[in-house]
Amino acid sequence: MNQKAFQDFYPDELSHCYGCGRLNKHGLQIKSHWDGDQSIAIFQPRAYHTGIPGYVYGGLIASIIDCHCIGTASAAAHKESRGRPALGSRARCPRHDRNMNTGPALRFVTASLHVDYLRPTPLGPPLEVRARVREIKGRKVVVAATLLAAGQVCAQGEVVAVQMPEHMMPAARTAQPDDNQT
Amino acid sequence: MNQKAFQDFYPDELSHCYGCGRLNKHGLQIKSHWDGDQSIAIFQPRAYHTGIPGYVYGGLIASIIDCHCIGTASAAAHKESRGRPALGSRARCPRHDRNMNTGPALRFVTASLHVDYLRPTPLGPPLEVRARVREIKGRKVVVAATLLAAGQVCAQGEVVAVQMPEHMMPAARTAQPDDNQT
Repeated sequence: MNQKAFQDFYPDELSHCYGCGRLNKHGLQIKSHWDGDQSIAIFQPRAYHTGIPGYVYGGLIASIIDCHCIGTASAAAHKESRGRPALGSRARCPRHDRNMNTGPALRFVTASLHVDYLRPTPLGPPLEVRARVREIKGRKVVVAATLLAAGQVCAQGEVVAVQMPEHMMPAARTAQPDDNQT
Repeated sequence: MNQKAFQDFYPDELSHCYGCGRLNKHGLQIKSHWDGDQSIAIFQPRAYHTGIPGYVYGGLIASIIDCHCIGTASAAAHKESRGRPALGSRARCPRHDRNMNTGPALRFVTASLHVDYLRPTPLGPPLEVRARVREIKGRKVVVAATLLAAGQVCAQGEVVAVQMPEHMMPAARTAQPDDNQT
């Protein structure tokens, strides 16, 4: 996919996530996009992302679902907030579309993550994760996800995402991951 | 800790897990031990294991909880199976202690994983995860976990572990993660 992913709109200081930060060169760099009213991400596991040999590591599946759902929450909140100064605020400006590159970033964090592993996920084919917003209420977004490999549903998940509290916002000069510390 | 970890008893062909396999050199190599009736694992995140800068990546927390609880399920099942030919079987030999290095390996996989992120987990101090077996029934073990950083509880989780089905058992010669494929 050539269009910008949700995560590509995160500001630099919020783009170091191991799962989906475009500035974390050690990370998974998960990329999520809209596909109609669903969101989609495709991820190609590496050979070492194994659990039982031949199958994908469950922690990786949890990580992909987590970041994809958080990205989906952010994109959905931008859509939903159309012109409001902040998600959850009752003050509403005249309605207009709000894309992810307009206004302050609505970055979310995970309040809870649930994954049901329905069958072993074969290691080899790209993984496809699809998500759908189940609920948006105030600063909370609930997102449900399905993970497929070779066309078969292998896992289902749900993430409760909450808008990142202000006190977690890093200063622009916060130390970033350092190769020397790895 | 100097004693062998639960995961060190997994046979070679089941020791390639990205989270806890001692033979996966790219992996996290999580190590779990008994500490009374709880199990404990200590994990030092790398600088790049960040989510929001300054805080630990939630997917890593899910991964640690997952592997620690699966290891705990395996260790608990070995204890519980004392002399039985297979976990879940009704045939019972005269009772005797069964350690992880005796009899066939009781290796578990994750049926479901749930994590509640109670507060942001600071990136820097080692993470301590403690788990307790909530239920053992047939081939299923339910394990609850608490994750602490700097003495504060940051996350809680629950894993439903099920004994690995025979058809997932890799042949001794199954291709293993290959550095050239990374």
